[in-house]
Formats: sequence, C-alpha cells, structure tokens
Amino acid sequence: MSSYWGKNLKLVIFGESHSRAIGGVIDDLPAGIPVDTETISRMLARRATGMSGIATARREPDKPEILSGVFNGKTTGTPLAFVIYNSDQHSADYSNLAENARPGHADYSGFVRYGGYNDYRGGGHFSGRLTAPLVFAGALAESWLESRGVYVAARIKSIGPVEDEGPALETLAPEELAALKAKPFPTLSDERGREMYDLAMAAKRDLDSVGGVIEGAALGLPAGLGDPIFGAFESRLSELLFAVPAVKGVEFGAGFGIAAMRGSEANDALYMDGSSVRARTNRNGGINGGITNGMPVSFRVAVKPTPSIAKPQSTVNFKTKTDAELVIKGRHDACIVPRAAVVIESCAALCTMDFLLGGMKINE
Amino acid sequence: MSSYWGKNLKLVIFGESHSRAIGGVIDDLPAGIPVDTETISRMLARRATGMSGIATARREPDKPEILSGVFNGKTTGTPLAFVIYNSDQHSADYSNLAENARPGHADYSGFVRYGGYNDYRGGGHFSGRLTAPLVFAGALAESWLESRGVYVAARIKSIGPVEDEGPALETLAPEELAALKAKPFPTLSDERGREMYDLAMAAKRDLDSVGGVIEGAALGLPAGLGDPIFGAFESRLSELLFAVPAVKGVEFGAGFGIAAMRGSEANDALYMDGSSVRARTNRNGGINGGITNGMPVSFRVAVKPTPSIAKPQSTVNFKTKTDAELVIKGRHDACIVPRAAVVIESCAALCTMDFLLGGMKINE
Amino acid sequence: MSSYWGKNLKLVIFGESHSRAIGGVIDDLPAGIPVDTETISRMLARRATGMSGIATARREPDKPEILSGVFNGKTTGTPLAFVIYNSDQHSADYSNLAENARPGHADYSGFVRYGGYNDYRGGGHFSGRLTAPLVFAGALAESWLESRGVYVAARIKSIGPVEDEGPALETLAPEELAALKAKPFPTLSDERGREMYDLAMAAKRDLDSVGGVIEGAALGLPAGLGDPIFGAFESRLSELLFAVPAVKGVEFGAGFGIAAMRGSEANDALYMDGSSVRARTNRNGGINGGITNGMPVSFRVAVKPTPSIAKPQSTVNFKTKTDAELVIKGRHDACIVPRAAVVIESCAALCTMDFLLGGMKINE
Amino acid sequence: MSSYWGKNLKLVIFGESHSRAIGGVIDDLPAGIPVDTETISRMLARRATGMSGIATARREPDKPEILSGVFNGKTTGTPLAFVIYNSDQHSADYSNLAENARPGHADYSGFVRYGGYNDYRGGGHFSGRLTAPLVFAGALAESWLESRGVYVAARIKSIGPVEDEGPALETLAPEELAALKAKPFPTLSDERGREMYDLAMAAKRDLDSVGGVIEGAALGLPAGLGDPIFGAFESRLSELLFAVPAVKGVEFGAGFGIAAMRGSEANDALYMDGSSVRARTNRNGGINGGITNGMPVSFRVAVKPTPSIAKPQSTVNFKTKTDAELVIKGRHDACIVPRAAVVIESCAALCTMDFLLGGMKINE
Repeated sequence: MSSYWGKNLKLVIFGESHSRAIGGVIDDLPAGIPVDTETISRMLARRATGMSGIATARREPDKPEILSGVFNGKTTGTPLAFVIYNSDQHSADYSNLAENARPGHADYSGFVRYGGYNDYRGGGHFSGRLTAPLVFAGALAESWLESRGVYVAARIKSIGPVEDEGPALETLAPEELAALKAKPFPTLSDERGREMYDLAMAAKRDLDSVGGVIEGAALGLPAGLGDPIFGAFESRLSELLFAVPAVKGVEFGAGFGIAAMRGSEANDALYMDGSSVRARTNRNGGINGGITNGMPVSFRVAVKPTPSIAKPQSTVNFKTKTDAELVIKGRHDACIVPRAAVVIESCAALCTMDFLLGGMKINE
Repeated sequence: MSSYWGKNLKLVIFGESHSRAIGGVIDDLPAGIPVDTETISRMLARRATGMSGIATARREPDKPEILSGVFNGKTTGTPLAFVIYNSDQHSADYSNLAENARPGHADYSGFVRYGGYNDYRGGGHFSGRLTAPLVFAGALAESWLESRGVYVAARIKSIGPVEDEGPALETLAPEELAALKAKPFPTLSDERGREMYDLAMAAKRDLDSVGGVIEGAALGLPAGLGDPIFGAFESRLSELLFAVPAVKGVEFGAGFGIAAMRGSEANDALYMDGSSVRARTNRNGGINGGITNGMPVSFRVAVKPTPSIAKPQSTVNFKTKTDAELVIKGRHDACIVPRAAVVIESCAALCTMDFLLGGMKINE
Repeated sequence: MSSYWGKNLKLVIFGESHSRAIGGVIDDLPAGIPVDTETISRMLARRATGMSGIATARREPDKPEILSGVFNGKTTGTPLAFVIYNSDQHSADYSNLAENARPGHADYSGFVRYGGYNDYRGGGHFSGRLTAPLVFAGALAESWLESRGVYVAARIKSIGPVEDEGPALETLAPEELAALKAKPFPTLSDERGREMYDLAMAAKRDLDSVGGVIEGAALGLPAGLGDPIFGAFESRLSELLFAVPAVKGVEFGAGFGIAAMRGSEANDALYMDGSSVRARTNRNGGINGGITNGMPVSFRVAVKPTPSIAKPQSTVNFKTKTDAELVIKGRHDACIVPRAAVVIESCAALCTMDFLLGGMKINE
Repeated sequence: MSSYWGKNLKLVIFGESHSRAIGGVIDDLPAGIPVDTETISRMLARRATGMSGIATARREPDKPEILSGVFNGKTTGTPLAFVIYNSDQHSADYSNLAENARPGHADYSGFVRYGGYNDYRGGGHFSGRLTAPLVFAGALAESWLESRGVYVAARIKSIGPVEDEGPALETLAPEELAALKAKPFPTLSDERGREMYDLAMAAKRDLDSVGGVIEGAALGLPAGLGDPIFGAFESRLSELLFAVPAVKGVEFGAGFGIAAMRGSEANDALYMDGSSVRARTNRNGGINGGITNGMPVSFRVAVKPTPSIAKPQSTVNFKTKTDAELVIKGRHDACIVPRAAVVIESCAALCTMDFLLGGMKINE
C-alpha cells in the first residue's frame, strides 16, 4: 500500500486538507494497551499550535475521535481507527492555486501523478495537516514506550544560522526530556530559542520563511532491535522521517560529519559498565549493522523553510502551460520547525515501538 | 520480510560472508527484459575491485550464476534467482572475532539480535560482501533504464577533507556519466581523485581508514513518480540507501544546507522550457511532496570510514563480559567509498525502476 | 497487516458491531474513477436487508459517508476512507454473552486471542456487520468492472437440501445477471427460492437456522490474470472468501467433483472460436496454473447455518471455566445465505479488479 | 511479491522445471532452530517418489543444498536459502509442447500471462516440481512443531470413487500419524489403498489418470491463533493450499457438508474437559471467526486428475491460432494424489508455524 507504514504494527493515513476528515487506522496493536485520549490530544495540540506569530492562524481544534479498536479504555487488538474532522476550511483561498504551481510544493508533481484528479485545495493529501494522524499514532506509541522505560524526544537544533546550545539530547534524563517537550519552542537554551523566534519573525516581515534542523533521540532501548539489510533501524526510521513534508535530509550519530573522520575516531570504543556493554562515544548513533547496540539512537533531520511565502514568485500555470507569477494568500507558518519537531518525535516513537513489538525472535 | 525491498518489483538478498553462496531473488520483473550477464559482471567487477592498494586484497571473482527466471536471454516474468558462490574464504582469520566485538561493526549488536546463533565469520550477513547481490539487481535495472533514456550515476564527492571539483552530477550528459562510471575511482577531477587516493594510503600507513561522501543522481525521469506520505520517493530510496553498510546520512537536493536557506531561496522557481515545466534551481532534488517533478533526482550519502582498522582498539568480549583489546588482522579496505559508489548507483537504479514499473495509475 | 487485503489495490476494514463506526480504507485506487454513492448504497442495502422474516430485525440504514479520497465525484488516487456509523445498538442484549461462549461463534477463540480485551458486544470485530465495508469496496469495484465489460454475480445455489435450477451462472448474459442481482432472494428459479424461504422459516419456528451454498462467477475476463504459485487467482480469491464469516468451503470449476473424474474428463478440451481460444467444458473454473484462461471464473462457497439460534445450547463460561447453558436472545437471521451472496459477489469483484489493475507486466 | 507467502516467516520459491535449479528463501525464521537435513531429505523423498507404477519415471534425487542461513546446524536468523539442482532433464520431450496447449495445464494461460517469454519446458515455473521447495520449508516447520507438541499430517481420503476407511485424522495419536506418514501410500486402510492403486493403474492402462481428495489435520494447537477477517486461519491456509498445482477445492471441518445442516447440528457444543475448553463435535474444523479454538484444525483438499495423459486430446496451437490434436509423451504420474499429500502436509505445517511465531500479542 502506498500509504501504510510498519512491520509489527501498521499505520495507514488518509485524508485531504479540505476533505470531510483526516485520520488513520493502526493495526496489529497488542490488545490491552491503555489509550489515554487526553495525552493524545495534548500531543496533537503541540503539533497544531506552533508559536504564536510564526505559525499559521488556522486553528483546527484537532480533536480526535476514535471509531473502533478501543473498548473500556484499552486497545482491543483489532484495527484502531480514528478521525479528526476538518472544520475550519477557507476553500476559496485556494481557488487560484488550482493551476498555478506553488514553488516548493507538490502542486505540479501531484497534478501529474494523479492526472489532475487530486484534491488540490490546501495541498490536499500533501498538506502538512496529514501529519496529525502520525502524531496520534506517535502519542500512543510514546505512552506505551514510557511504561517500558523507553523515552523519545526531539528538539530544535537550529533555525537558519542560530544553533541551540547544551548537551546532546541523548544525554538527558527522562525529566529533562519531559521539560523540553513541554515547551512550545523546544530548545534547551531559551535564549537561543528567542533568537530563533526573532529570526523567523524577521523572515515573516520580509514575506519569507526559514528552515532548520531537528535533533531526535530514543533512550533506554535494548541492544538487538532492527533487522539486517533492508530492515535496518536506519532504513525504517528514515522511511518514516522522509514521509514528513519538508524533510530533505536524515543522518544518524555523527551523520555527514563521520565522512571526514578516520576510522579510529568513528569507531565507538566499547567497554563494560558493570554488566552492560557501553560505548565511549556514539558516532554510530546507537546502531551498528542496522541493529541497536544499547546506546541511545540519535539522529538529525533537515527541514526546509515553509514553501508558502507571501513574496511574489515566478512559476508556471501547468494547465495552460504558460509562465505565471504567483502571490500566495492565506494563512501560513513562517517556520514549521517547532511543529515539525513533534512530528519527528512521533516518528521516532512509532518506529521504536514497531521494533520492540517485533522483538528478537530467538528459538528456545 | 526483513530482507526484501520493493513494491513493484521485489528483491530478496541472502548469504553470509563465508556461507556456501550469497545471492538474491528478484520477483515481479516484467517478462521479456534482456539479461546481459556480461554487463552485470562488469558492474560486479567495479564493486569487487576498488582501487589497488586501498581496497581489500580478497579477490572473489564475483561470477554470478543465474538459477532461474531467464530463458533465451530474457526474463521469464517468474522469479529470477541468482547466486555468487563464496570461494576465497580464510575463516581462520576471524576465529578471534567470535567474542571480541570489532568497534563500528555489528558484532555485538548482531550477537544480541540473534542470540549468538549468527554466523560471525567475516561479518556474516552483515558483511559488505552482501552488497554484491544489490549490485546484480542494480545492473539489471540500469540496463533497463538506459533503454528508456533514464540514466543513474554516482561519484565520490569527497574523501576526508578532499572535495571533488566540477559541476553537479545532475548536469552531465549521458556520455559524461558513462565516462565517469568507467573510472576505477569515479571523480570528475582526476587530480582530486589522486589526492583522495593519497589520503587513503596515508591512513592505511597509520593503520587507519577514511570515509567520504557519495553523490548520486537519476536523470531523464518523468514527473509524477512516487507515492504520497510513506511511499515518497525519498522514503523508498533512503530505505534502500541506509541498507548499505556504513551509510550514516542521506540528503536530497540542497539537503542539510536547505535548513539555513530562506523560503525564497529554497523554492525552485518554475518556468516553461518549450512545453516542459522546468525549475531554475534544484534545491528540492527533483522531488516535491515525495513525487518527482521532472528535474533530475539528486542526493548525497555519508559513508563512514571502514571500521576494520589495523590499529589496536579497546572493546569488550561480549561472551565473557570483560574489557578487551583487539587487533584486527585479515584483509580490509582502507577506504570503501569507491566500492560503495557502485552500490549507491545500484540503489538509485533499483528504486527508479521500481517507481517506473508502478507508473501513475490514472483511470482511463 | 492482519486486516488488509490486496496487492494492486489495498483494503483495510475496521470496526466492531457496537463501536462508533465501521468502515474501511481503500488505497492504490487509480485516480479518476467515478464514485457513485447511490450504486454503493443500493448494494449495501441488498446486504443489509436479507429477506423479511428470515433475516435479523436489526435495521441499520448502512448509509456510508466518504471521508477522503473522492473529489468532484471521482477518486483522487489517494486513500479513500469511508465509514458507516453504528446507531441501532442494543448493547444490553449481549451482556450475558460476555462470558458464555456462543457455540459456532468466535466468542471463545476471540477471548483467548485478545486476552479478553476484545469488544464482545454483538460479536465485536467478528460480527457479520463487518462485511458491509467489504460490500462498499465490492460495489466500487463492480461499477469499474462493468465499465470494462466484466461482470460478476452470485446466486443462492442451495439452502439445506433445496437446489436452485437453471444453467450455471457463467452461461448467463449481462442482463440476466443484472436481473438476478435485483432479486432479494437471488435464485434463478423463483419456485425453488420460495421453497428455500419456507425451509428457513420452518427452521426459525424450530428456533434453529439453515445454511447453504453460493455460486459465484466473473464473466468477460481476459486470459492471463493471476500470478504463479502463491499469487494464484484461486489463492487470492479464496483468501478473501474465507474472510467472510461462516464460509467453510471454497471450490473452483468442478471443485470437489473433479476428484472423482478421470483426466480425460477433467481436462477442458480447447478449440478456436474465431480468433479466440475457448474450452468445450469449464471444469477448471476458468483458471489454469493459477492464471485465467479466458473462460469465466466460476466458484462455489459453503455457508454454514447462522450460529445464533434461539434453541438452548450447551456451552462453557470461559471466565469461570464451568459448563453452562445458553439461550441467545436478540435479533438474528435464520438464514444468512441471501445476505452472504452479496458479500461473495463483492469479493469476486474486488479480487478481479485487483488482478486487472496489476495487468500482465510484459516488457516492451 | 507474487511468489512469496507468509506473515511471521516468509517463503519465496523460485525455479523452473528445466532451469539450473529450483529452490527457495525462508526469511524471518527465529535464530537457533536445529536444521536436520536428513529429515528434510526424507520428506523430499516422500514427495519425489510417489508409488512405483503410478508415478512419473523421472527420478531427481532432490538433494537440497543449503546456501545460507544455517551455521553449526542451526538457523542463524538471517535468510535461509536453499537449492535443488535440476539434473535429469529430457528437454527434447517437450519440444512439441511449445505451441500446442496441453489441456488442463497452464500452457496457454501462462503464454498469455508472460507474453510468450516464459520457460515452457516441462511446465516451467508451473511444474509440480516447484512443490519441492514447499516441502523443504514444510519439513523444517514440521520438525519445529513437533518439538512443541504440535503434529500435522495428511492422508489420501479418496481416489476416484474409492474412499479410505477409519477415523478422522484429527482423532489419531502422534505415533499413529507418524506411522501413516511413513507409508508410501498414506491411507489408514491398506486394503482401500490397494484398491486406489489398482484404480490408478487401470486408468494408466486406459492412457488416462485419476484424482482424489486429501485430508489434512493439525493437532495440539492452542486456541487463539489466527487474525480477524483477512488474516483468518482459513484464509491463510487456503491461500497456500490453492498454490499447489491441481488443487481445486478446500474445505474446513464439515466443509460443504455443513451447508445442509441446521445450526443446532453445525454448532459445536462446548464443555469443560478438566480445565480445558473442548467441543463435542468439530464441524468448524477447529476454527471460529478465523481463529483456532483449541480443537484440531481439520480440512480437505480436492486434487484433480493429472492433466498429462497419454490419450490423444483436442486442443489449439496458440501461436498459429489453429485447432490441433495433441499426444503427450514423456513420463507422467497417473495419479499425483500420494505425492500431493506430502505437499498438503507441508502447507499445513508452514501455516501453523507462521501463526505460532506470531503469537497473540497481548499487552502485559
């Protein structure tokens, strides 16, 4: 299926920005997992809100409704379907976009892919709004992981040239991660966060937008998760991360930086920490040969600047096949990085849960 | 299946470094595709050889044998199985590795994953040798693509701090790509290539190794390939790229660089080039919303330095659970980047073929 | 995923008898397929109604609501999600069933499978009501097939000992098939239909129920559909048919009868009918080696008597682990065969569409 | 993939009757399963042999070679690839079949499916010989099951009009099942077996062939195996059974016979047998709602008479599109039912192992 992800659990996402609803189906969940809709709603709210001023003014309440698969507050083990109804729709705003491709968006590529039958309003199925079902699933996964001592988090590593300060995410304690996630603008340094915010506001005044880098981590994972070759932990997580609109790069551990190291630096020296195998560094991001080694999984994701900018742009009318000039109206984020951080966190949670459900399959 | 990849065609890879054979099964290939074993052998030779001096001295002929699925020189449409027998095996070299984890390798993570039942000799299923079946499939895909005017290629973008010169791969003509691929050390600048070589030799003298960055591209693709969300072109290609041992980062178009741009710079302005929609820049790497836009697909991959180095290393004996010191003997590449370039090229070919086979599915 | 079916299109079904809604997601549909909700509603009504007197008195309007994937009356090519809200729920009726397994139902097997977390009300996810989403998908497929000259149908072949009369379904003209499908009790002989009805009513008076056999056919299919071995047309269709509650047998062509034939009788002699290859008989049900041969696909399905009967039954309380006696109250069909016929027809339509979408994949 | 089966383990089968080899890849096996090639060879021999006189004279030794995935006699957890080389090939015998479709075979349907590129020699990928890899996998599964107290078996229930005698397979003890499986002609009554043999010999003298019914069972299964709807135990097992050439019908429990019962007869009354839930009858074949109920799984399969008969047959030349008369030469079984029984047993073992590996997924 084009739009499903997962091996030991499965997630299908459906919906368009202006369809009746968006939602998803999660299958192969174990029976008996507590489902706390309030936790889920809180995480959806983190995605929906963004920072006042730099995020879009569109305000869907993003109230999810569970249609099936939950009984007496716990998963039944049969498919869990949920929807978020679309209510706050200004379809008229998009009428002139039907033919003029917004640069950096999927308008033209989507038009060709679907022969013009796709719902173009608000980006249709390509809308960032479709990340809400991903966050729903991620919230469920995150609760489940925490009950097992596994913690995932994501923070804004940089916006434009401004870098966050502080230690790597993978070194934080669960409480520190929780405090970070409670912030509307998840940076370790609030001062750097303010600078990032100012940078985004400045871009907005210039009718422009900014991008950034998100750092993610999963802590508390056992060694031995992942499958060889195509089932590598990096393969499955990157598959998910690149499904998030605007993601253009994914790296694990030292990432692209590792290419300039020598082997003696890139190899993480191992040692015994009591009865646990640990590494003195974590250049490999907690993964060797596609399989977790017991160190935290750490990764970074490049998020491009919001393509919807108010500046006039050169483009084409793909129906008349002529050059065109475009001014995008409507409500748009000057910087989607804070909202994307919640989505990236969700991806990490979902992927980690999938691998934990699979286990190691050793004959006894 | 843990070890299969693909949607419209499927590839399964099997084997261990020291098992009877390695190989693969390719399924759902269209019937009637010419299979030229000589082209395949040539591409396998590019992977096997590497540069004299910096690559391992192990010299398997890598002669593939087709077991099924080809009749009268063409695919039958039923599963194509092929093997490469393992012959040049020095199992003894690895005997001391059974318990001492080689840092940067999957020895420890694999031991946990498989409860100690995995074949540890030469890295077993985690060996870089397992990329040969991937190259077999890639060679087949590449021939098929070329007969349709689609060209894929990969070059060494950098090794350590040395960068290749010349234009981006995506701007080259088919003949230039062919000339590049004919080189044992695929850089555009032969001088930079020599410097890279010297750098690797210097590392080898220091009993160390170096990593690098590989640039890949697919040219001549139509717009409209890819599926939304989890089926994004980036998702599927990155899933494949991260399956290649030593890959630690993947980026498309401007990649991580896009995070520091403003939207007005990151958005590729569109224009009509005759009757074709084109973009003035290609920051998005030929993909919007997970779907090709008609520009070349361009990406880069970070390859870590060969973890097998001759320097003594601190590690653990994971059976006795004690600290240990390790000196790796045997034959190993000081730099696997040249060999990895062929594998990355194969991934691009395989992924592109898969999407082309799927087509766009528009009702008529 | 446990609950998806399909290769070239995918169907996921969710819901429980008493959950907020039941529904499904259909993915990988070509873009641009007309979606006529009235046709779909009519087919859903055929499933919901059954015959007055022998079917359950529960009367959901079964009005489907499309949530996504349809724009301007046509498929967008992105996932089509739909729901049917559950409204007419008498949960109280089922309260005593939570612990006493209804013989012939999935109460006990489901309890074990889901560790007691499953929604037991009305059979939960095992309810025959879950066939409504299957019929939704089947109705969509059937319209699409008819626009291509392919016709599927199903009839009641027998109920108890009463057999329908008339020729095999595969010999009928499209108009005859349409007339058959318009009947609430789809038999060729109305007289035999009345006898079947009387038989069911008699069983009901005895607080009992009856089963039957359904014959299905797909006409107008080209030769060459199906995949070898595990992808056989029979494999995929039977996978779907056995997903329908109460189905206990599936046979193609002469089916079990072929076991008593000699080869010279079972082999369908071929001849040229103008430029078409035809067979003089159709013992193989239109399929050889798992692949259609151009003759109609014909099959039969055994449907067991409704397990919910009003007669007192011996059973166990699976929570207290004691023997128990059970009297099932509530509204239940004395014979589900007429309703099942619509579901079987839907399965045939869905499977045929899936294979037609896949095509033959021959290199050109 | 067209040619893979399984959810918790995966089996891919490749090869053609006259290709270099046939074989398979089994993935997602737990690490550490003992692999006894002798047991496997013995089961392959049962498939290869058939009864002297009624089976084909072709005698491949069917000696499997394991290429990967086994180390020190146990599975490594990575893909297990195996081959059986084809040696005894009389390709010349088949030269006249390239164009004249053998009735009852896939010659014509396969020709259309693959555009004439398929390997037609000996039936190519459609050959019954391709069941050997299935038996390899089944033998592995059967050993694993037996170490867990789960037993599968199959017997010849009837050939032509001759029925075996004795109790249902599901009532036998493990030793009785083992004794049955040791017979070259697996019937409970040796006398009935002889009559069946005579019947087959008589058919052979008439240049004809006979079919039959095979009964299969899996004993010792826990309740709770299977997934709802499309993942039903019946769905998955029937998908596998219909992949076996010549199978035209599959039924579980009372099967087609259940259609003539009343509910009170078809419902298996439950009772407590100590602390176990048991049923007084087993009309449902051990499965309710697609999920095992703790009773033995029982099923029957209709096998058509060998389509290769020596009698002259009317057919078409599908290349010249003219009527033709065909006389099939070469070595062919007059009755494949004894050999098919081993394959059916293998399907049951493979399917049961797949479900057992999946387990029940209940949150703790």
